Amino acid sequence: MNEHTYAVIMAGGGGTRLWPVSRKNRPKQLLPLLGQETLFQSTVARLIDLFPPERILVVTVKEQASEMRAQVASIPEENYLIEPAPRGTASVVGLAAAVLKQRDPEAVMAILPSDHFIRNRDLFHYLLRAAFKVAEHNYLVTLGITPLHPSSAYGYIQQGELLSTEFKYPVYKVKRFKEKPDEETAQGFLRSGDHSWNSGMFIWRADMILAEIGKQMPALFAALERIMAAWNTSNRDETLKSNWMDLKSETVDYAVMEKAENVAILPASGLGWNDVGSWDTLFDVLFPDINGNVSTTLQHLAMETHNTLVYGNNHERLIVTIGLDDTVIVDTDDALLVCKADQAQKVREVVEHLQKHRQEKYL
Amino acid sequence: MNEHTYAVIMAGGGGTRLWPVSRKNRPKQLLPLLGQETLFQSTVARLIDLFPPERILVVTVKEQASEMRAQVASIPEENYLIEPAPRGTASVVGLAAAVLKQRDPEAVMAILPSDHFIRNRDLFHYLLRAAFKVAEHNYLVTLGITPLHPSSAYGYIQQGELLSTEFKYPVYKVKRFKEKPDEETAQGFLRSGDHSWNSGMFIWRADMILAEIGKQMPALFAALERIMAAWNTSNRDETLKSNWMDLKSETVDYAVMEKAENVAILPASGLGWNDVGSWDTLFDVLFPDINGNVSTTLQHLAMETHNTLVYGNNHERLIVTIGLDDTVIVDTDDALLVCKADQAQKVREVVEHLQKHRQEKYL
Repeated sequence: MNEHTYAVIMAGGGGTRLWPVSRKNRPKQLLPLLGQETLFQSTVARLIDLFPPERILVVTVKEQASEMRAQVASIPEENYLIEPAPRGTASVVGLAAAVLKQRDPEAVMAILPSDHFIRNRDLFHYLLRAAFKVAEHNYLVTLGITPLHPSSAYGYIQQGELLSTEFKYPVYKVKRFKEKPDEETAQGFLRSGDHSWNSGMFIWRADMILAEIGKQMPALFAALERIMAAWNTSNRDETLKSNWMDLKSETVDYAVMEKAENVAILPASGLGWNDVGSWDTLFDVLFPDINGNVSTTLQHLAMETHNTLVYGNNHERLIVTIGLDDTVIVDTDDALLVCKADQAQKVREVVEHLQKHRQEKYL
Repeated sequence: MNEHTYAVIMAGGGGTRLWPVSRKNRPKQLLPLLGQETLFQSTVARLIDLFPPERILVVTVKEQASEMRAQVASIPEENYLIEPAPRGTASVVGLAAAVLKQRDPEAVMAILPSDHFIRNRDLFHYLLRAAFKVAEHNYLVTLGITPLHPSSAYGYIQQGELLSTEFKYPVYKVKRFKEKPDEETAQGFLRSGDHSWNSGMFIWRADMILAEIGKQMPALFAALERIMAAWNTSNRDETLKSNWMDLKSETVDYAVMEKAENVAILPASGLGWNDVGSWDTLFDVLFPDINGNVSTTLQHLAMETHNTLVYGNNHERLIVTIGLDDTVIVDTDDALLVCKADQAQKVREVVEHLQKHRQEKYL
């Protein structure tokens, strides 16, 4: 990868559907959810073969930055961009692009979530190299995930005609970005063969995405200009904050990409991608035994139990399951979740309930 | 009740099907399973209106005696009979009868388990008074429970003809004691109308049951004679122990009652009796909410959950259930059980597994 390529890791989110393990101050990406490494550490680890740490940026919030630095010491301090408050991916992308363009007018950047799992690192590298090639040809590139089931938990991207045969990977024009569909619509997307899951991974030239923001989000663009004018002065933090708080929270997909020209997609199959979005996704990421059970605790005694996840960290505690099917059990010090696997999305409502009733200790 | 009536509480058992709350050194009857009182305390409390503490005996094992004395201070020290080791209900009954006969040749005694729940105390008193009347007419009396469902967890007693119209309660001759049936046989018992659940509660004259033991269990009878000869000497403990260890473990139902003459049954309906034998029985004893859920913890958040028991004592812990039906969750400090309610009997196998694998800390 050439010296103008950069990776930008977005890491401001929380992961409410992974409660009670994921908490306000221990968000999903900072937890060793799947083993020894945290999702953030894994994300950096799979980039480090392509990018030296000086060309990896992290955009996050103040509350998470120090833990991130503790988990990954290699990324330089000045590569952490701190959002004064969460304002959606469009703002994050704009800030990162503006900072990179100021550092390097030729910058080409990949935007990558911090909390996704990717099993096949080699394919990911191959795909990312191809995507950078396409981006260098002035396309706004997105990586799509070829769907494996009719999920209504993801947004979708519909592809159009093949863009070119000159890349070592099939690349298509993007026809439309689509919001999370209902189950029936998702069935149609799956059958159509021309829809991908929206992975939230994008690759583009910094100047190109900024120009697009200038066209479609003039308020954000103007704010970014004011912020960058003060970036190398003592007023950086103050200017960032005062401009940032007024921004509307919008996603880059719908506020920018949807209406942009020259949007391309590389659909990926076999990445082993998973957004680890809710507890039921762990069946895909970890390794079920012959009965379909997954246990992270050493002390799980399963009797007539099938397709059940037992997630616990306290190896002094014995967990016994009898006669269970398709169930998720998450055992932490101060909270226990027992949930039918197909209702794992509802964990989000638990967190909303706790917020509403001000049960801060469990948040 | 006249001065020759006695109550004998049998309390040596463990209650393995109530693991992980019931443990080797914290057996079922010594736990406040259903609220403030332990089952043992409730058992004493419902006898104390009929018997002064001096006429209530407790047969138990050494490991449990001190905790029992701590829970019930009113029963005199000398009324605790300590089994050197568990040797079945026939041995317990024989020892209690022999001791009582020595104290009071006219003694009539009720044998009562320490770990059952009875909702309607007034009816229990009424029934017991009637049963003592029948026993004073030289019958070996048992209390039957009119079955409410085709349980295969209980033994059954088939009744014969009406014994007499002179008692204030219908009393029948016993036709047969029957072991725990399979489901289909239990259906037949339920339909027959002449079968009761075997409650393990018996009422008889001490001299009569001893005579019956003399006929049917000569080895036990001889041992009891040797034990009683030394009872008021300094050799009591030694003689008890040396004779006790050789006894075979047998139940009074099958070793004595089955072949006895003059066996009578008082079938009880509406006692609200429950043997609290396994976790699913708590749905009958505690008070389910409108969704059929029972929670003993203050912090249970139930979403789309029905007919589910959440049993926990740690009110700092939040337990969330989503999409569960017919499930039992028992949460303790060092062990968690999640079990389909209709498989609650299998908890016994968990304890056997733990014994086999020498996981002493969880027993």
